[in-house]
Amino acid sequence: MPEPVLRIIPLGGLGEVGKNMTVYETGGDILVVDAGLAFPRDEQLGVDLVLPDFGYVRERAARVRAVVLTHGHEDHVGALPYLLREVAVREIWATKLTLGLVQSKLDEHGLLRAAELCEVDPHGTPVELGPFRVEFVRMAHSIPDTVAVVLDTPAGRVLHTGDYKIDHTPVDGIKTDVGRLADIGNRGVDLLVGDSTNAERPGVTLSERVVGEAFRQLIPVRRGRILVSSFASNIHRMQQAIDVAAEVGRKVALIGRSMRKNLNIARNLGYLEAPEEIFVRPPELDDYRPHELLILCSGSQGEPVSALTRIAYNDHPAVRVERGDTVIISAKPIPGNELRVHHTINGLAKLGAEVLHEENALVHTSGHANAEEIRTVLSLLRPRAVMPVHGEFRMLAAHARLAQEAGVPADAIVLAENGSVVELSRGGVRVVDRIEAGVTFVDGLGVGDVRDVALRDRRRLSEDGVVIIVATVGTTNGDLASSPELIVRGFGDAAPMLDEMRSEADRVLRECVEQRVTEIKLLQEHLHDGLGQLLYERTGRRPMILPVIVEV
Amino acid sequence: MPEPVLRIIPLGGLGEVGKNMTVYETGGDILVVDAGLAFPRDEQLGVDLVLPDFGYVRERAARVRAVVLTHGHEDHVGALPYLLREVAVREIWATKLTLGLVQSKLDEHGLLRAAELCEVDPHGTPVELGPFRVEFVRMAHSIPDTVAVVLDTPAGRVLHTGDYKIDHTPVDGIKTDVGRLADIGNRGVDLLVGDSTNAERPGVTLSERVVGEAFRQLIPVRRGRILVSSFASNIHRMQQAIDVAAEVGRKVALIGRSMRKNLNIARNLGYLEAPEEIFVRPPELDDYRPHELLILCSGSQGEPVSALTRIAYNDHPAVRVERGDTVIISAKPIPGNELRVHHTINGLAKLGAEVLHEENALVHTSGHANAEEIRTVLSLLRPRAVMPVHGEFRMLAAHARLAQEAGVPADAIVLAENGSVVELSRGGVRVVDRIEAGVTFVDGLGVGDVRDVALRDRRRLSEDGVVIIVATVGTTNGDLASSPELIVRGFGDAAPMLDEMRSEADRVLRECVEQRVTEIKLLQEHLHDGLGQLLYERTGRRPMILPVIVEV
Repeated sequence: MPEPVLRIIPLGGLGEVGKNMTVYETGGDILVVDAGLAFPRDEQLGVDLVLPDFGYVRERAARVRAVVLTHGHEDHVGALPYLLREVAVREIWATKLTLGLVQSKLDEHGLLRAAELCEVDPHGTPVELGPFRVEFVRMAHSIPDTVAVVLDTPAGRVLHTGDYKIDHTPVDGIKTDVGRLADIGNRGVDLLVGDSTNAERPGVTLSERVVGEAFRQLIPVRRGRILVSSFASNIHRMQQAIDVAAEVGRKVALIGRSMRKNLNIARNLGYLEAPEEIFVRPPELDDYRPHELLILCSGSQGEPVSALTRIAYNDHPAVRVERGDTVIISAKPIPGNELRVHHTINGLAKLGAEVLHEENALVHTSGHANAEEIRTVLSLLRPRAVMPVHGEFRMLAAHARLAQEAGVPADAIVLAENGSVVELSRGGVRVVDRIEAGVTFVDGLGVGDVRDVALRDRRRLSEDGVVIIVATVGTTNGDLASSPELIVRGFGDAAPMLDEMRSEADRVLRECVEQRVTEIKLLQEHLHDGLGQLLYERTGRRPMILPVIVEV
Repeated sequence: MPEPVLRIIPLGGLGEVGKNMTVYETGGDILVVDAGLAFPRDEQLGVDLVLPDFGYVRERAARVRAVVLTHGHEDHVGALPYLLREVAVREIWATKLTLGLVQSKLDEHGLLRAAELCEVDPHGTPVELGPFRVEFVRMAHSIPDTVAVVLDTPAGRVLHTGDYKIDHTPVDGIKTDVGRLADIGNRGVDLLVGDSTNAERPGVTLSERVVGEAFRQLIPVRRGRILVSSFASNIHRMQQAIDVAAEVGRKVALIGRSMRKNLNIARNLGYLEAPEEIFVRPPELDDYRPHELLILCSGSQGEPVSALTRIAYNDHPAVRVERGDTVIISAKPIPGNELRVHHTINGLAKLGAEVLHEENALVHTSGHANAEEIRTVLSLLRPRAVMPVHGEFRMLAAHARLAQEAGVPADAIVLAENGSVVELSRGGVRVVDRIEAGVTFVDGLGVGDVRDVALRDRRRLSEDGVVIIVATVGTTNGDLASSPELIVRGFGDAAPMLDEMRSEADRVLRECVEQRVTEIKLLQEHLHDGLGQLLYERTGRRPMILPVIVEV
């Protein structure tokens, strides 16, 4: 009988922050842990979402036993609908809140019946999924109901942390289960697959409760409107803001689609407590005076079409900001989003608001373990081998350094990449092969219109083609310097439409100029949507549309 | 006799970080304080430098009495050569080190004789420049020999801080002269024009000496090469690194053009002390073992063609990095540069180096005053009016808030923009008008080739035209998906050259693919240089070249 082997293949999340997805494969069965997405970088023109390359799983679809999800963040569950379109998955295992969020997402994509949703009980008996015996361990993170996954396999025991921090005073009282971790450590861990995001940062991450304490100091003394913007999935942060609002007698409004959606799901499932009468709907905001309101809104990353960005440009239908108001941006910009967030802060400051953010107030804490917390986990588990995941290379390298300092031998620390094939056997752990693990781009038409999102793989450009539109605008006045230029590829039958496309682009840009829209990102967005709409109506096709704006 | 009036017109530095330049005008005479440049944002394709709009000064060139410089940073002196080409300036006043840096810059531009360089003595008697009686006050900052400027005019007394922090333990012992500030406050300040960069940050900025203490802890215990990267102008930081190198017996190498230039100037003028025998030249590096070397290099902002970036991609002729080496990035990314710096850190980590940077070690401190330091200056000066400058709007607004808390009446706080015309008279201060104050772009051919930099104003596109080149490359393998496409504007006689340009672009890209250059920024750089060279050789013209790279 051959020695049992477990193959571990990260399809995303290594060498990057985002699109986490790991394949575990043993005895012919595959278990997928997480299926997340990433958001495009600025230079990835015309792309809405970035997905892992499902190729390896697609080619072995029949062997996929289940998908297990650690928590409900987009970089861990966002690619699920796209995966389900390509691979028939029988079961999806996750905790209650994670399932609630996934259910709503699948519903939007018309995929509710695509897989059986199975609820995990972190305190229940292990689940047998083919050759995998799966246990779940409660972990604290910036979304409730997060778990680590223990995989008992013939080849050894793996602990896959998922995202976590060690918060001894979490808002819901549900701590990282250090007792269980110690217990599992005593049973013996052959491989730790662990979150590396903050491995470079010394010390420990502050407890989520610290942010609530800051709200409690900041909010009662203020007289104007209070806006709090954060990731909508950070339910505990929202809970803490709502609690303070209740204490000081402010009404609460939820602004932004993701904010309303996430909070409704959390409330329905019992993860958020708030009396019905505290909420006011956006159209009712004008019935209240500024000091009677606390507004929770999405857009903490400065996303071009988000609620907070529109508010900052004084362009939101329901919310305005004026002198005396306070905006709390309770988040840290994801690398690459800094300038967008700065623009938002400047816009709000120009309207007269005082803006509190992580650089000038204690209004944010990370959901990821710093170095001392990672050391604690290493001490509790005493793993024989460590594979750092979830992070850019420098973070993985810092995690590896911590493992080595904790006594893990250098040859038992695996610095893998997306697509590395790692094998765990009784003989230890090593990289044995490498598969293609690129990226898949999703180019939808506008946001919000999720049902209509067309899955687009840029490597199959020839199907629908690409339209590049180059427009020149004046820097000072935003005037058009000349009419837009078009480059069309792989879209032969579009040639007779060139004039129509050019005049549509011209129309869109002139409309923007009239409405004093001069932000490059917004101009790109408008061009993208206008041309996409036109081409879809005329041809039923969705070419990739790349608007290039040149300031002259 | 009419009441005397002082007009203050910021031409740059408000609503942004960069290109600081302020016009002071009274009785028909103009004094310009600083003439800085900014670096382009990513979306400003094809631009090397951004300058203030000199229009207002150019039209009144005969009235310009002098240019006064507060310190030698590029965002305060970098536009000077371009200003001197357009406006005959009789005198430039600055301290010794600032003049040394400016002299080298003017020499490179062939402008050494364009103006008289006049050395400021911060402890000397005031200088009479037409109706302006000018005094200088020593300030601490992240470059030595920084001064604030006091302007005594018939309309009132203005204190223009320039960049500063209050460092009570600076490396050279030359502190911000709080005694003089108090003295000037007692004489009465009608208007404070003050640095706002860190006004949002609570508390005080750490002393520069703290970084030296970190070097002293980190460097002696390490066995491999040590690289320290920072702004070359941060002479005191370099001094502290060199001091520790001397203590532990490491030799010092200077890598990168700006690093060598700045340190040589500082050493020649007596601002940096180091024994000649401590330095080794780059070609000699191989004669030493890793633990015998400390390498000071430029590139702390992840600039595409800088020394540190090339080292991180294992592409530097003289320096390599391997396991056991330590790289100290002693700087903070300027907003917008975060991803570049992250790429550099990842590259260095992949080579095996431990990378210390401001997020994981105390290896950087800011040169700008935090809120409590600004409060100290407000208390020392007790100004009748305040005009926050140097910063994005949110920073100006935070400074305004500090001024109000310090007792300055709200109507005596001016939140101006670039181009605002502010008037100071016995009656107080107010915005009376607004002039055009846009930006001027400089598009040079490559860096380093400064003598050849062609001053290009995009508003005069018709002169040399613009060439937009769109190339598609594969994400996974960097292969060319199809041959590049060209869009040419305002460059009529280039039509017969289209084929040649296309094949040149093709050649450049294929060469990049062969050498495994896949970084978008580097591809753009190579395309820009290759086409620019070709067009200049053939036509003697320098069109603006915008390379657009699309990943498919």
